[in-house]
Amino acid sequence: MTTRADRTRRPFALADAVSLLTRTPATLDSMLRGLPDDWIAAHEGGDSWSPFDIIGHLIHGEQTDWMPRARIILEQGEGRTFEVFNRAAQFEESDGRTLPSLLNEFAILRRQSLRELEMLHLTATDLDRRGRHPAFGVVTLRQLLATWVAHDLDHVMQIARVLARQYSDEVGPWRAYLRVISGAQG
Amino acid sequence: MTTRADRTRRPFALADAVSLLTRTPATLDSMLRGLPDDWIAAHEGGDSWSPFDIIGHLIHGEQTDWMPRARIILEQGEGRTFEVFNRAAQFEESDGRTLPSLLNEFAILRRQSLRELEMLHLTATDLDRRGRHPAFGVVTLRQLLATWVAHDLDHVMQIARVLARQYSDEVGPWRAYLRVISGAQG
Repeated sequence: MTTRADRTRRPFALADAVSLLTRTPATLDSMLRGLPDDWIAAHEGGDSWSPFDIIGHLIHGEQTDWMPRARIILEQGEGRTFEVFNRAAQFEESDGRTLPSLLNEFAILRRQSLRELEMLHLTATDLDRRGRHPAFGVVTLRQLLATWVAHDLDHVMQIARVLARQYSDEVGPWRAYLRVISGAQG
Repeated sequence: MTTRADRTRRPFALADAVSLLTRTPATLDSMLRGLPDDWIAAHEGGDSWSPFDIIGHLIHGEQTDWMPRARIILEQGEGRTFEVFNRAAQFEESDGRTLPSLLNEFAILRRQSLRELEMLHLTATDLDRRGRHPAFGVVTLRQLLATWVAHDLDHVMQIARVLARQYSDEVGPWRAYLRVISGAQG
């Protein structure tokens, strides 16, 4: 590994991406399993999502987004536009489920996704292969896989924020120091 | 547990706080242990912190901030101003350490802190007891403990953001959808 002056950007590396993607089920489990129900249902107001909603969304992503789109890129290329991702699917699909059951399902699906990914034995050339996104147009497999990683972390961040903000009032004057509550940019 | 229309705020409850605080070492472990070194040293530019810096900061908090300040409140009240927290202590204290060693130390210190907290058998009256913060003036034990919880989650959020932003370029057009990268407020 070379020493890099710029520590704010990394080039995509498949082994790194797999290492990050592998961690997410355990991270979410640690953050959420066994928390009281009203924390699991907490949100940030309006139509913002709760931790429960977010796990359902991640499940739907494993089922319809990441590896299905990767297969479309490899098998059909940019001639075949991806299906539009349904950002509200979890409200129906998670109905009547429990959080532990969703966490279990997500962990199983993620393991399957990563097993499939591994079996593709992707090369650098494969990562340059192109697909067609319904809104963005041409995208590469590398961009799709980098987005999978960042998307996981986006939702880990969101869950931490939803939980922390439940104590926006209880922290009193300390809210000035807590960027998770004040919304100050890092 | 009562049904609440407002899912954006929770009143402080000691059992909830302990449940959240107990989880943090495993969450950080899952996110970071075994990641390549250059991800551990990644940051957001300027003098922003890396995951390595953040774990050191959390260790320093266990040693000098949370339970030490709780004891000051209970033993000396608002007559004794808290020490100023050193936000740069980790740069010296973590020097030469490895991330696994810092994660191990944090987990041990957190267990000790929570054992001490439990042994205080705090009552609702205790939670109203007051101390004096060097910048804010009078604060309560309840506010201190709520801040401990939110502070953990603030740094979980920060680590997720630091890692995700390493792929700010690699995600290509998807950056528009990733709030962790675009910085759009949730």
